[in-house]
Amino acid sequence: MAGSPSRLFNVAVVGATGVVGQELLKVLAQRHFPIAGLRALASGRSAGSRLPYNGGSVEVEELNESAFAGVDLAFFAVGGAQSLEFAPAAVEAGALVIDKSGAWRAKDNVPLIVPEVNANRIVENEGIIAVPNCCTIPLVMVVDQLRREAGVERVVVATYQSASGAGKDLVKELAEQTQAIAEGRRPVAAVYPHQLAYNVVPGGWTPDEEDYNDEEVKLVKESRKILEDPDLRLVATCVRVPVPVGHGEAVFIETSRPLSPQRARELLAGAPGIAVEDDPARQVYPTPAETAGTDEVHVGRIRRDVSVENGLALWLVSDNLRKGAALNGVQIAERAIAMGVLS
Amino acid sequence: MAGSPSRLFNVAVVGATGVVGQELLKVLAQRHFPIAGLRALASGRSAGSRLPYNGGSVEVEELNESAFAGVDLAFFAVGGAQSLEFAPAAVEAGALVIDKSGAWRAKDNVPLIVPEVNANRIVENEGIIAVPNCCTIPLVMVVDQLRREAGVERVVVATYQSASGAGKDLVKELAEQTQAIAEGRRPVAAVYPHQLAYNVVPGGWTPDEEDYNDEEVKLVKESRKILEDPDLRLVATCVRVPVPVGHGEAVFIETSRPLSPQRARELLAGAPGIAVEDDPARQVYPTPAETAGTDEVHVGRIRRDVSVENGLALWLVSDNLRKGAALNGVQIAERAIAMGVLS
Repeated sequence: MAGSPSRLFNVAVVGATGVVGQELLKVLAQRHFPIAGLRALASGRSAGSRLPYNGGSVEVEELNESAFAGVDLAFFAVGGAQSLEFAPAAVEAGALVIDKSGAWRAKDNVPLIVPEVNANRIVENEGIIAVPNCCTIPLVMVVDQLRREAGVERVVVATYQSASGAGKDLVKELAEQTQAIAEGRRPVAAVYPHQLAYNVVPGGWTPDEEDYNDEEVKLVKESRKILEDPDLRLVATCVRVPVPVGHGEAVFIETSRPLSPQRARELLAGAPGIAVEDDPARQVYPTPAETAGTDEVHVGRIRRDVSVENGLALWLVSDNLRKGAALNGVQIAERAIAMGVLS
Repeated sequence: MAGSPSRLFNVAVVGATGVVGQELLKVLAQRHFPIAGLRALASGRSAGSRLPYNGGSVEVEELNESAFAGVDLAFFAVGGAQSLEFAPAAVEAGALVIDKSGAWRAKDNVPLIVPEVNANRIVENEGIIAVPNCCTIPLVMVVDQLRREAGVERVVVATYQSASGAGKDLVKELAEQTQAIAEGRRPVAAVYPHQLAYNVVPGGWTPDEEDYNDEEVKLVKESRKILEDPDLRLVATCVRVPVPVGHGEAVFIETSRPLSPQRARELLAGAPGIAVEDDPARQVYPTPAETAGTDEVHVGRIRRDVSVENGLALWLVSDNLRKGAALNGVQIAERAIAMGVLS
């Protein structure tokens, strides 16, 4: 292998003050990532403040084009516009960029990676590797395992997405609305277009000409790219639910060949990064509150889809900040080191 | 018509202290139901207490076999076991029973009625008419409208069901858990098998041998009976969400013939009991918090299902205590009067 395991890297976390940025700091420390120096970058107004890191803290520095000098690896956890503005500067400075935004995912020369599914594509990067959407990652991990055995004809998904998927402002708004309800006051919706506490909201994203919102479109396009199946038939309805962390998905997978629930359980239980929790008679199935903070994609309610010849219905939950974002990004970096792509 | 519109009826509400029972009292008053005398029946421990009714109150009387003397019409809003025990006594006493429990719905001589869909079957009753499950009612109203135009091949549903669907104890538990979260305490789950506040729970019901829970099985069996399509292909995953009142459903309908979203909107907007709220670019779609207390089934996010040749994806919300229960029951009684079945 080209990369020596003893080498340490200068790492930047861009957007360090956001929910994904802070989770990145946590995951890097938890996984003992080989860090020589760490830069926490954010907008100028946060510069000088400190963020918790590895039992101590790290000072926030201002994100600008010269912030990447000497950086080997830059995790971007900012919006698409900022990523488009600053990622090229990081690449120019010699850093490998691992980007969480939607800005680069569709580009041909940007691998879109879920390490358990398509780590082999990491080598094709030209400086930027994209982390998929937080709903796409767990979905393709499960679909990939099942299609290896039985093929996949069509996937129908309804999501139950937590507030943190929209960022820290919505997490705060959910907490404030919850406080208001507990105190008998009227909840105020300012960040999201509708009240989220005590409600579920099938929107908050921007619709396209067919009235699919961008979250639903991402699920389709990104799944096709990662699974390398440009014709994959997939439809989704994305819904925001009053949960701080943890996305749920009700999934209906039509397979090409028969696949029993028991065999699906075995396949998924044996797959890297997936945990099966499926004993509904004892009310065992994953829920976001019990899944938040864990690394695995948790799957339960696996059963034969009684409405098609070959198909399964199932339920999955994953921590959208960890496997849905920060953890997946750090895992990409770990694989890039192991493959000698980052050395 | 056999029944005179000026006739008044002696009405009993069985299970009057429950969430559906109290909603029945409200709906009967709001709709100026032709009531001569009203009996609010509940278990002995509630007897003597008073419930709000029509600006005043009504005294709760004990439910027993002799409570139905002189009663023309009895709304049952109790569990299956109590309904099986007492509904025959009500029929014996000469009352028409309109029952919300699951106990009678599958029986051949019990019409299962959503007035907008199959009011014609009301005449076939032998004393008991069943009100469908709170998720079935809005679903069949929408599916029925679309299949009249384009046929229906298969329906996939993921539900977002509120706490009140499980009764007042879960509504109280959700409020207590919400209070705990607002005060930084740990929420306690006693009524439901998992914490509901800040969570979503794909269970709480009893699974069958195929691991479908009874809520999911009801959706399939009841839809087939109401739509008179014993082979209807329907699959559901039912999920409880931290909402007090109002059930949401993400629905994917495969039709036999093409049906444009615009035509579907026209059909649904023109259908009795259905309201279309569908302008996602302006973030207009129904949500439970905004739907609770209304009578209609609210439909939005209507779009072409891009994963099948002929199909639509849509989102619906209805007040599970009103159209999903009490209102549908009172509407059955109104139709029974209009048809001369109750006279």
